[in-house]
Amino acid sequence: MDKKLIGIDLGGTTIKFAILTTDGDVQQKWSIETNSLDEGRHIVPDIIESINHRISLYEMKQEDFIGIGMGTPGSVDIKKGTVVGAYNLNWTKKQNVKIQIEEATGIPFVLDNDANVAALGERWKGAGENNPDVVFITLGTGVGGGIIAEGNLLHGVNGCAGEIGHVTVDPGGFECTCGKRGCLETVSSATGVVRVARHMSEEYAGDSQLKQAIDDGQDVSSKDVFDYAQAEDAFALMVVDRVCYFLGLAVGNVSNTLNPSSVVIGGGVSAAGEFLRSRVQNYFEEFTFPEVRNSTQVKLAQLGNEAGVIGAASLALQFMEKV
Amino acid sequence: MDKKLIGIDLGGTTIKFAILTTDGDVQQKWSIETNSLDEGRHIVPDIIESINHRISLYEMKQEDFIGIGMGTPGSVDIKKGTVVGAYNLNWTKKQNVKIQIEEATGIPFVLDNDANVAALGERWKGAGENNPDVVFITLGTGVGGGIIAEGNLLHGVNGCAGEIGHVTVDPGGFECTCGKRGCLETVSSATGVVRVARHMSEEYAGDSQLKQAIDDGQDVSSKDVFDYAQAEDAFALMVVDRVCYFLGLAVGNVSNTLNPSSVVIGGGVSAAGEFLRSRVQNYFEEFTFPEVRNSTQVKLAQLGNEAGVIGAASLALQFMEKV
Repeated sequence: MDKKLIGIDLGGTTIKFAILTTDGDVQQKWSIETNSLDEGRHIVPDIIESINHRISLYEMKQEDFIGIGMGTPGSVDIKKGTVVGAYNLNWTKKQNVKIQIEEATGIPFVLDNDANVAALGERWKGAGENNPDVVFITLGTGVGGGIIAEGNLLHGVNGCAGEIGHVTVDPGGFECTCGKRGCLETVSSATGVVRVARHMSEEYAGDSQLKQAIDDGQDVSSKDVFDYAQAEDAFALMVVDRVCYFLGLAVGNVSNTLNPSSVVIGGGVSAAGEFLRSRVQNYFEEFTFPEVRNSTQVKLAQLGNEAGVIGAASLALQFMEKV
Repeated sequence: MDKKLIGIDLGGTTIKFAILTTDGDVQQKWSIETNSLDEGRHIVPDIIESINHRISLYEMKQEDFIGIGMGTPGSVDIKKGTVVGAYNLNWTKKQNVKIQIEEATGIPFVLDNDANVAALGERWKGAGENNPDVVFITLGTGVGGGIIAEGNLLHGVNGCAGEIGHVTVDPGGFECTCGKRGCLETVSSATGVVRVARHMSEEYAGDSQLKQAIDDGQDVSSKDVFDYAQAEDAFALMVVDRVCYFLGLAVGNVSNTLNPSSVVIGGGVSAAGEFLRSRVQNYFEEFTFPEVRNSTQVKLAQLGNEAGVIGAASLALQFMEKV
């Protein structure tokens, strides 16, 4: 039997698992609830128990696996295999994840942060088409990202490479949770889209259902903004245009800098699909020089929820090939 | 005897050569004039003759060399070792550089574009301190750059990685030779600095020697702008501040994206030294998030004219290690 990979996507609500071939085909997948009680001390034991249970359920052995990869929130120390500051897991203190999982499963383990791991997934089996240069941007509650360049996942000197959410797109703009102003995240995350809508609604005088909903104090979401825009609400279209301007500027500049074969946009906000992508594309074209404009593609993510487990398996495969 | 490297820096005026150790120490260096007559057809033969002459002069043999690296203007095909569109060499048609040089010297040859090669030089033996993640920006007639990430020189899908001169820093700003607007090059190259000065002088009403020189139709250079600013000309200080704002925005965003250990600024405009660097640093701090601000350094280039030959030797060393 060909050796297999295990991919884990550790999230605040669920922990997703998959067993994959070295070609990236998902053979088994399952998930368990994340138990973040007691400072998250049950999480690693739960992961171990779930893996060992499934391995025996499928009548497999530890020797059947090349390695386990995992994407996690928080700050990671890749070499040591530790995580700290993953607040949605209640992991405020440093967690020795790698040592515990390797000891209890007998399988080599590697981890990285969740956005980087999702980037590896979209690059391997999704929109990135396994090209050596792919940039991934995820528009969710925040804006994260990951960069693969010349086949390598980038980390930078302090692990911050790929933090495209904190690229300054609007100097002097909205204040960000990071402490500076005008970050991409402030205008293109799910909350950012709504922030832009609220801000622009103060100036907008015309007829608009979106403006009315905001003025009425309704609980407007990013999805509402895009839904109104797709229904041709003039104000909502202005809001979407503004969001796509900032996205196009950021996507354009990361492309001017790295010239990837594709910039892949994922996350909840990207559910707006081609409606969003085509508008980002227009500004991308305005903000890139010809040689980049004609070689770098702006794409939508393709793997959805599976990007995490697939990317985690890719991480394990890459890492074990290097050692 | 330990094997040596040959580095070549091919420019429009001179061709610089050096023989280096594998530690990057320059043991011999020399240069010849670039003869770009007859569509530049003498250039490659001149390079070959010069190398073979020096090798015999130093009583060395082709076996004493690991390889030859070269930085060149124009568009390069790294695999084929060809160059096209190097207009300052009159190389409008494709030149088969690699084949000719390897056949005539018997030494393996590799080339890359000059900004990438200078980046390798500054990374190896200059301000980059041989770290795996270094970004280099050169402020000359144009603005070029090169990126080393996880130890690899980046190229991107179409060879445009590192073209930081065409990052959009001023949407709707000055038109660039590339066809789009607001490129870093339009406001921070030698001509860009003067462009900013001329543009701002139209609005400036106060007393200023720089403004007077511009209004008198004098031939003001980028160096003049910095000289006036260092002499505390109020208008020149405003111009320098504007230039450093754009540089700080671009350097900040490439750092938010890649988190290199350093962004190294070189080229003619960087002759303004710490006066320039400290002002770029201030805006860099405004435009980066804390984890990047505290880990990425903004530095001045250290190798000057030697960056090209040293980087070319680094290119040869890296390339030959891979094959």
